[in-house]
Amino acid sequence: MKRKGILIIISGFSGVGKGTLVKRLVEKYDSYALSISATTREPRPGEVDGREYFFLSKEAFENKIKENGLIEYACYCDNYYGTPREYVERQLEDGRDVILEIEIQGAYKVKKQYPDALTLFVMTPDAGELRYRLESRGTESEAVIEKRMQRAAKEALGIKEYEYIVVNDKLEKCVDEVHRIIMAAHNAAHRNMEFIDNIRKELEGGE
Amino acid sequence: MKRKGILIIISGFSGVGKGTLVKRLVEKYDSYALSISATTREPRPGEVDGREYFFLSKEAFENKIKENGLIEYACYCDNYYGTPREYVERQLEDGRDVILEIEIQGAYKVKKQYPDALTLFVMTPDAGELRYRLESRGTESEAVIEKRMQRAAKEALGIKEYEYIVVNDKLEKCVDEVHRIIMAAHNAAHRNMEFIDNIRKELEGGE
Repeated sequence: MKRKGILIIISGFSGVGKGTLVKRLVEKYDSYALSISATTREPRPGEVDGREYFFLSKEAFENKIKENGLIEYACYCDNYYGTPREYVERQLEDGRDVILEIEIQGAYKVKKQYPDALTLFVMTPDAGELRYRLESRGTESEAVIEKRMQRAAKEALGIKEYEYIVVNDKLEKCVDEVHRIIMAAHNAAHRNMEFIDNIRKELEGGE
Repeated sequence: MKRKGILIIISGFSGVGKGTLVKRLVEKYDSYALSISATTREPRPGEVDGREYFFLSKEAFENKIKENGLIEYACYCDNYYGTPREYVERQLEDGRDVILEIEIQGAYKVKKQYPDALTLFVMTPDAGELRYRLESRGTESEAVIEKRMQRAAKEALGIKEYEYIVVNDKLEKCVDEVHRIIMAAHNAAHRNMEFIDNIRKELEGGE
């Protein structure tokens, strides 16, 4: 079977550890490419253009929008954030699975354009654990934590639109679970139509 | 997450090695139960009631049909063959994944009653390999092999109705692939609705 890359959309509650999960997945298995977002915000100390983000001017970003060069984009706090299309499509053509860590609204937009994309939502074992993780960071005020919990409650309404869920309880276990789900997705019949058609034709031809 | 058993329907071309595959899967991983068919045909030497088949009289079999005790059944060569419902449902309730090795028509019937069942079709890498395997058995006449190849051509039309395909090229690799697909299926959002609803309620409750 010829292996085509799968576009993988990973979302999850804020504070669930998606970033660490995705980073570890890409480190552990070499079949993945991580999509890098473009943004108009200023680089923070230590951030490198083309590693954390592609840093673009507002004009360059808006040009990208015009020429359909972004799969999705959104505006937060007066800055644009988006997913450059070219990198994603090149990796998929090379047979690599491309991971997009993205919030729920962006996920819907991507899935519309790439119906074959695999959607995965990362959860904590329960709501208390989510609060605990947000609190243990020690960087957020109680008001911000409340806001994030309310946002999670809203996001929870959208989980059913995702194909798979994983519980990020133990990191390595969760990484392997995500990897297994993606590997299994390569066996989906709808992703192997060409192979199925070929064997059907061979059999009909009396091979 | 509470683990519910999944009903797994495995079909494939005649001669593809489904039987060996399923046997090895059940041997290798202990989370599976293999569904045992009922039949009215005579036991062959060495066959044990409740191991290869449940051997029933015609009357007993027809009673089972009447009381809806079979998930599906069919008549071949004047003998009934069918899948007893009770064993399957008991195993599923106990959280075990139940494997049903069954042909394509039976698979459709089961899927109608158990829409959550996972369907999997086992293929050879190509048509030539299927013919080669049938010939290497050395037990079938050329005419029988022709018939089986024609039957495979018909079956190939139905593969797209299955959710997953696997290529049985190397046995152990294929066994692990099937296991991975089933494990991933446990993460499907539609099989975890209760868990998703619970966390949503917790979050809404301001937990």
